[in-house]
Amino acid sequence: MKNVFAFGCFALLTAFLAAEPALEKIRQYRRANEHRILAEYTQFLAIPNVVTDTVNIRRTAAFVAEMMRKRGIEARLLEAATPGVPPVVFGEVRTPGAKRTVVFYAHYDGQPVNPAQWAAGLRPFEPTFASAPLDKGGKIVAAPQSGQAIDPESRLYARGSSDDKAGVMTILEAYRALVETQLKPTVNLKFFFEGEEEAGSPHLSEILDQHRSRLQSDLWIICDGPVHQSGRKQVVFGVRGDVNLEVTVYAAKRPLHSGHYGNWAPNPAMNLARLLASMKDSTGRVTIEGFYDDVVPLSESEKQALAKVPDTDATIQRELGFGRAEGGGKSLSELINAPSLNVNGLQSANVGSMASNVIPTTATAALDLRLVLGNDHARQTEKVVKHIERQGFYVTRREPTDGERAQYPMIAKVSGKSGYNAQRTRMDLSVARSVVAAVQATVAEPVVLLPTSGGSLPLYLFEKHLKTPTITVPVVNHDNNQHAENENVGIRNLWEGLETMASVMQMK
Amino acid sequence: MKNVFAFGCFALLTAFLAAEPALEKIRQYRRANEHRILAEYTQFLAIPNVVTDTVNIRRTAAFVAEMMRKRGIEARLLEAATPGVPPVVFGEVRTPGAKRTVVFYAHYDGQPVNPAQWAAGLRPFEPTFASAPLDKGGKIVAAPQSGQAIDPESRLYARGSSDDKAGVMTILEAYRALVETQLKPTVNLKFFFEGEEEAGSPHLSEILDQHRSRLQSDLWIICDGPVHQSGRKQVVFGVRGDVNLEVTVYAAKRPLHSGHYGNWAPNPAMNLARLLASMKDSTGRVTIEGFYDDVVPLSESEKQALAKVPDTDATIQRELGFGRAEGGGKSLSELINAPSLNVNGLQSANVGSMASNVIPTTATAALDLRLVLGNDHARQTEKVVKHIERQGFYVTRREPTDGERAQYPMIAKVSGKSGYNAQRTRMDLSVARSVVAAVQATVAEPVVLLPTSGGSLPLYLFEKHLKTPTITVPVVNHDNNQHAENENVGIRNLWEGLETMASVMQMK
Repeated sequence: MKNVFAFGCFALLTAFLAAEPALEKIRQYRRANEHRILAEYTQFLAIPNVVTDTVNIRRTAAFVAEMMRKRGIEARLLEAATPGVPPVVFGEVRTPGAKRTVVFYAHYDGQPVNPAQWAAGLRPFEPTFASAPLDKGGKIVAAPQSGQAIDPESRLYARGSSDDKAGVMTILEAYRALVETQLKPTVNLKFFFEGEEEAGSPHLSEILDQHRSRLQSDLWIICDGPVHQSGRKQVVFGVRGDVNLEVTVYAAKRPLHSGHYGNWAPNPAMNLARLLASMKDSTGRVTIEGFYDDVVPLSESEKQALAKVPDTDATIQRELGFGRAEGGGKSLSELINAPSLNVNGLQSANVGSMASNVIPTTATAALDLRLVLGNDHARQTEKVVKHIERQGFYVTRREPTDGERAQYPMIAKVSGKSGYNAQRTRMDLSVARSVVAAVQATVAEPVVLLPTSGGSLPLYLFEKHLKTPTITVPVVNHDNNQHAENENVGIRNLWEGLETMASVMQMK
Repeated sequence: MKNVFAFGCFALLTAFLAAEPALEKIRQYRRANEHRILAEYTQFLAIPNVVTDTVNIRRTAAFVAEMMRKRGIEARLLEAATPGVPPVVFGEVRTPGAKRTVVFYAHYDGQPVNPAQWAAGLRPFEPTFASAPLDKGGKIVAAPQSGQAIDPESRLYARGSSDDKAGVMTILEAYRALVETQLKPTVNLKFFFEGEEEAGSPHLSEILDQHRSRLQSDLWIICDGPVHQSGRKQVVFGVRGDVNLEVTVYAAKRPLHSGHYGNWAPNPAMNLARLLASMKDSTGRVTIEGFYDDVVPLSESEKQALAKVPDTDATIQRELGFGRAEGGGKSLSELINAPSLNVNGLQSANVGSMASNVIPTTATAALDLRLVLGNDHARQTEKVVKHIERQGFYVTRREPTDGERAQYPMIAKVSGKSGYNAQRTRMDLSVARSVVAAVQATVAEPVVLLPTSGGSLPLYLFEKHLKTPTITVPVVNHDNNQHAENENVGIRNLWEGLETMASVMQMK
């Protein structure tokens, strides 16, 4: 198997059939344990896991440690040097004779929640089953009772159900499946479950440094993010970097009656709108000077892989219900190889039933920048700041003082955590080819190989601190509402994810 | 007194001194009753008065009726033909020999509240005293105890404290002051307290028609809005019309991970920003086609009055803390004679600690249009809708269907109640001159005469349904945060308002 990209259909089928006995054992195990697995998973999902909820995030970590202990893995909490940081839950299993060591990564924390935005009948931390996606006619149903068949097309709704407690669950359950079916891992296994990924992993460097010797390995398998929109499994060799910025535009210090002051007092919402509009053209191209500079072009093998990615754009667009994509006709998989700028949210005074006839005092936009290989997060941020200044704003990092308010016609506060850079692993590494073959062994149709995911994880840290490559093997459905209300996971994805992880643990 | 605009300083002083005995009696009455007045007023302010709170809005009406009964005025609730509408609280007092009948108008309902936005220690319906404005170093203080001097520079914070329970309170207390000091009104008095002004007075027409004969008069005195920013009393001859619109821009049907879909899935917040930015230029001039057409120019006397309005722009700008006014150098009092377009609020997904890396599904802007004489509310709205269409949006009044989503590249829902037109009373009417003289009799410095207020009330209805002119005599401070959080009234404004209303009741 000289080149993973040369897989023919026949070769695929041969690999699939050869792997079948092990795969079939894993399936039998799963069929016999579905109820137990879901019972444990709903318990896990019921623990709030927002990183700012310091009590519950520790409870979540303790639950993960207990899951490991139940599987015979000695669990340790790897603490950061900084006190109060959610710990990494870590464990390891030696495999006699193994030549490679693989760390399986997932994160147990989840995105912030606004329960008011969730659909009727759903609460972020009350795991709820539905017969199908609720936005496609699914209905809320009771949790499956013992003896009752579990529909693989049903969904389980909760914060973290996809992102990324599903990673923790499928990894640990895959290990249990191997043990109980007496299948043998081929590599030494390490388990590394992070607790502040959704906060931007601010202490991951610290933890990697602190526990460097314990974390030595040949590869990190990152189990996070969705499978391909076509439903096909995928292996992803990189991630985009990420920067979160918040821009607040100021006007009068107190809210003003829009009748008595309108036409005269500046309107921060309008000034923010003008600023945002200056950042992108109507095709979605970012118009900030130098925004697309620095990008490292794709290699030939990466271009070839990209050309084979199934084109599901029209289907997804129909499903998502919008009439025109941005990007001037380029495909989604092509566009995620470019840096991006997105508005994540807007807020100024009130709308709807709370709206009143005021000129607001401030208007805020939450922005995120996605970075690709070559972009530096500080340099990319600086381009945005320079752009805001070029639009006539005085840019500050703090609330403006009275003096600043008097001096500058327009003021914008730019705040935000520091971001991180993109990372990309070469597809032709030997260990990369092993991972692809292991995932391919679980399915007949070709696995999608992506040079980079659209999403972000601070994977550059593993390269920087441990000199170890990372490969992402996602398991959850693409329509999972991760990072938003109504997050959910497809039951089928849990089952298939278990097979994927078990196969990777047995990679050749 | 041939021309109210020819007042010289000497004439002013003469008028002021002549009125003094009556004025002095009112002051003595007030000094003796300050604690009782504020006790009643805080009780009044403690009743929630948001129009959608159907139970409490009736409680508020009942309280107003009781205030009237305590003053010996028979109170009636004038109901609309439509059931469930907050009633008008009405009463009348005949004055033997009077030739004119004047209706005193105020409204007892208030703007919607978002308690979370109020300053620490304040709640919208827990009236709270402060030693001075909280944003100028004032501190929260206990309600004045009997025997304790009341500082006229202190403030009372609560929703409705200025807009417009202050109108109800000063009118009714002025009447009580006349009765108790045995001063005689010179006109027949009618009292008309509306209960859904902040909702746009949707049933006022119905009520005026329903009770037309009871409401016959020579003039309506509208006690609403603030005195001039200079602190001087003012008489206002018109109001701007108002239209509230809400524009919602649509994108994908479910929130998307900004990494996996950014650069490809359209961003509604960015599209809304581009749309808003297309509506005004950087000087604040509205760029919607024909926006400034239809405006009836000011008459010569109106222009003269406008030229005499004290120029407080620089002071207010300093106080409000912004560096550059819109309007290309024109004065605030000049600019409110033009139609306006304001963004009242923006909302799309979340910002701050609730922000997450999503592409939102929708983005909404609350807009209000202020209209001046000559603008028609439906025509002005149509100009905005046409503009949105010209920016490439398909405009709908409902949630878009799947078919519409598939068909149109950009979709905007425009929703909103119907608005109403501006109104302006001629300054040279005999009754107008009487009102100006009565207000002038309470102060030495010249009363400011404004052709129109910046704010809006549906005063055109009184002209349309009853053929009766209206003149606005405001009492509250200009820095009252009406329509926003931290609404407050200056105690001095309550005392001076009482004098104003008592003098108008005795107009010559």
